[in-house]
Amino acid sequence: MAMKGVIASAVRTLASSGSSASSTTFTRHLHASAGSKKIVGVFYKANEYAELNPNFLGCEERALGIRDWLESQGHKYIVTDDKEGPDCELDKHIPDLHVLISTPFHPAYVTAERIKKAKNLQLLLTAGIGSDHIDLKAAAAAGLTVAEVTGSNVVSVAEDELMRILILVRNFVPGYTQIVNGEWKVAGIAHRAYDLEGKTVGTVGAGRIGKLLLQRLKPFNCHLLYHDRVKIDPELEQQIGAKFEEDLDAMLPKCDVIVINTPLTEKTRGLFDKERIAKCKKGVLIVNNARGAIMDTQAVVDASSSGHIAGYSGDVWNPQPAPKDHPWRYMPNHAMTPHISGTTIDAQLRYAAGVKDMLDRYFKGEDFPAQNYIVKDGKIASQYQ
Amino acid sequence: MAMKGVIASAVRTLASSGSSASSTTFTRHLHASAGSKKIVGVFYKANEYAELNPNFLGCEERALGIRDWLESQGHKYIVTDDKEGPDCELDKHIPDLHVLISTPFHPAYVTAERIKKAKNLQLLLTAGIGSDHIDLKAAAAAGLTVAEVTGSNVVSVAEDELMRILILVRNFVPGYTQIVNGEWKVAGIAHRAYDLEGKTVGTVGAGRIGKLLLQRLKPFNCHLLYHDRVKIDPELEQQIGAKFEEDLDAMLPKCDVIVINTPLTEKTRGLFDKERIAKCKKGVLIVNNARGAIMDTQAVVDASSSGHIAGYSGDVWNPQPAPKDHPWRYMPNHAMTPHISGTTIDAQLRYAAGVKDMLDRYFKGEDFPAQNYIVKDGKIASQYQ
Repeated sequence: MAMKGVIASAVRTLASSGSSASSTTFTRHLHASAGSKKIVGVFYKANEYAELNPNFLGCEERALGIRDWLESQGHKYIVTDDKEGPDCELDKHIPDLHVLISTPFHPAYVTAERIKKAKNLQLLLTAGIGSDHIDLKAAAAAGLTVAEVTGSNVVSVAEDELMRILILVRNFVPGYTQIVNGEWKVAGIAHRAYDLEGKTVGTVGAGRIGKLLLQRLKPFNCHLLYHDRVKIDPELEQQIGAKFEEDLDAMLPKCDVIVINTPLTEKTRGLFDKERIAKCKKGVLIVNNARGAIMDTQAVVDASSSGHIAGYSGDVWNPQPAPKDHPWRYMPNHAMTPHISGTTIDAQLRYAAGVKDMLDRYFKGEDFPAQNYIVKDGKIASQYQ
Repeated sequence: MAMKGVIASAVRTLASSGSSASSTTFTRHLHASAGSKKIVGVFYKANEYAELNPNFLGCEERALGIRDWLESQGHKYIVTDDKEGPDCELDKHIPDLHVLISTPFHPAYVTAERIKKAKNLQLLLTAGIGSDHIDLKAAAAAGLTVAEVTGSNVVSVAEDELMRILILVRNFVPGYTQIVNGEWKVAGIAHRAYDLEGKTVGTVGAGRIGKLLLQRLKPFNCHLLYHDRVKIDPELEQQIGAKFEEDLDAMLPKCDVIVINTPLTEKTRGLFDKERIAKCKKGVLIVNNARGAIMDTQAVVDASSSGHIAGYSGDVWNPQPAPKDHPWRYMPNHAMTPHISGTTIDAQLRYAAGVKDMLDRYFKGEDFPAQNYIVKDGKIASQYQ
């Protein structure tokens, strides 16, 4: 296969300590030099499930379905789910890998220390959306390129959020639990089951996922509010019928349901602490498929136990995988799952195709779709700032 | 309180045996005679839940919130949840009650035999929607009036159906179960989790609930199909973007998701038997909040076990309450609950108000809203034929 536009010598630099972004950034060149590359992918293991669905591309066993394609071009493709601990498989390959493919569903934490050791590393690809498992400042300082498959999960996550809103509002979980336990107590469910119609739903963040959620909420005849740094397009805003709330703390007490749709950044880490949760309406329902660390873990447990939060659902945890003793597993009125919303079979097909496309462009020395870049030329994308 | 337009002598008749509708119907007059009436309500008991929500009107303890109003007018109001067995509380009052208020969520089966014994009975009110627990032929032959609170549950049920579609398509239940069991196996969920976008959803029946469901599905970018006896209004059909399917058996193999939105009648009882389920696509997801008896119970279990049905969710069973050994509790890939979708707090407020309104009209000798009648003047409403 022809390698077009490859640049022979990649500028190499040592990674900074990662404690702060260096202003004098040396760029490890994005474009690949000719020849064989070592690509490492870190995905969750599917074990007995791997063979059950031919489109289950996101697991370690199927490795995005790109092994034959990569190897036919002479590249080396190492795939593992072993990403933690001193002797983990990932760490063995850090010193000489060129590309690391990771995923938010089984995050390989790319720390400043790992970046420092990865002398050949040029490209960090996220199979999916959400690159906060990468130390983006350290990556930027080291001149690495970080890219996601932007758009690959947005429909999946918005659908999943609406499912969780309905599950909480309508009190699905106790009903299901009764059935499998051989019980039938309608009152035990009905006394706290409501319709979504007429309730006030506010999204914290109205980026692509937030907008898709609002569009799907429209026919439910709710009062829709959104908080973000900027207003959404006036035509779309009118079409959806959502109202802009400039001040988050002014929006929260109005909401029966709050949905978190903001990335994890230094500004949003711990955003929902004890004080902010106290500003929410008593009996509020919270859906968070964004990132677990946006919430103060213990504050959510305490407010769920007191009833101030009447229901909490999401697929994101701090850390992931959630340990067996993570208190969110055992707090009252939750509808939690593992990190799953963006890794439906449909989403896997999209992000596998997106990763393949970016690798192809990388080999050819072509740019990626502009919206995919998270770190480029030492700069971090605005949504992560 | 003034009793306007009461007619002094109600025409009395003996109930027919109920084995067939009599063509020579004597009408027990709808309108109440002046004086005290005996009204019996049969609702589910809330026990410890009764005090948890002041709007929890649908339980036996709160009895639709109409006791003070009824008693202040000199009426007698008996409320019970004890509706079955030879010595049940309901049967004690059958001989002399004038009005029976029942609910589909805890159905008091009004058989031909009970109707025959109920010499004073004039009016059967359903607190909610769905009167198939009443022998409508026997009621018609006996000249009784049967009425529901039409419209009280339609939004509730449509919302609940969309929730169940998402729960099945996105494979929520195994994720939740993993969390409470201390597990984290993304692959065990993801290998059969999909987005709703792009899938084909067909509703069997497009009455009020079916239409509300289709409207809520619209922004999900599915292929929407509907089967009914008549086409829906062309303008609405175009707005929703749903396609009419005249032949049920031609629609079924096209659908990834099938939703049942048809009442239980002689024609729909057992409609989804082994043969009809076999006509569905392998891996079909079925949502049924209509009536359990529309499905052949064992055929659903067999198809769920074989994987032909990849997921089944609903809140209706045959019979209700579902016994502890009902096989739907234990079949694979289900997301069942007790009968709950139409008894949210919002729905309870609507049907409590609707029952009160009809009682008020009954005492005053006024007609009910036309759409509420299920049996009137010996005729059964078209949706139950």
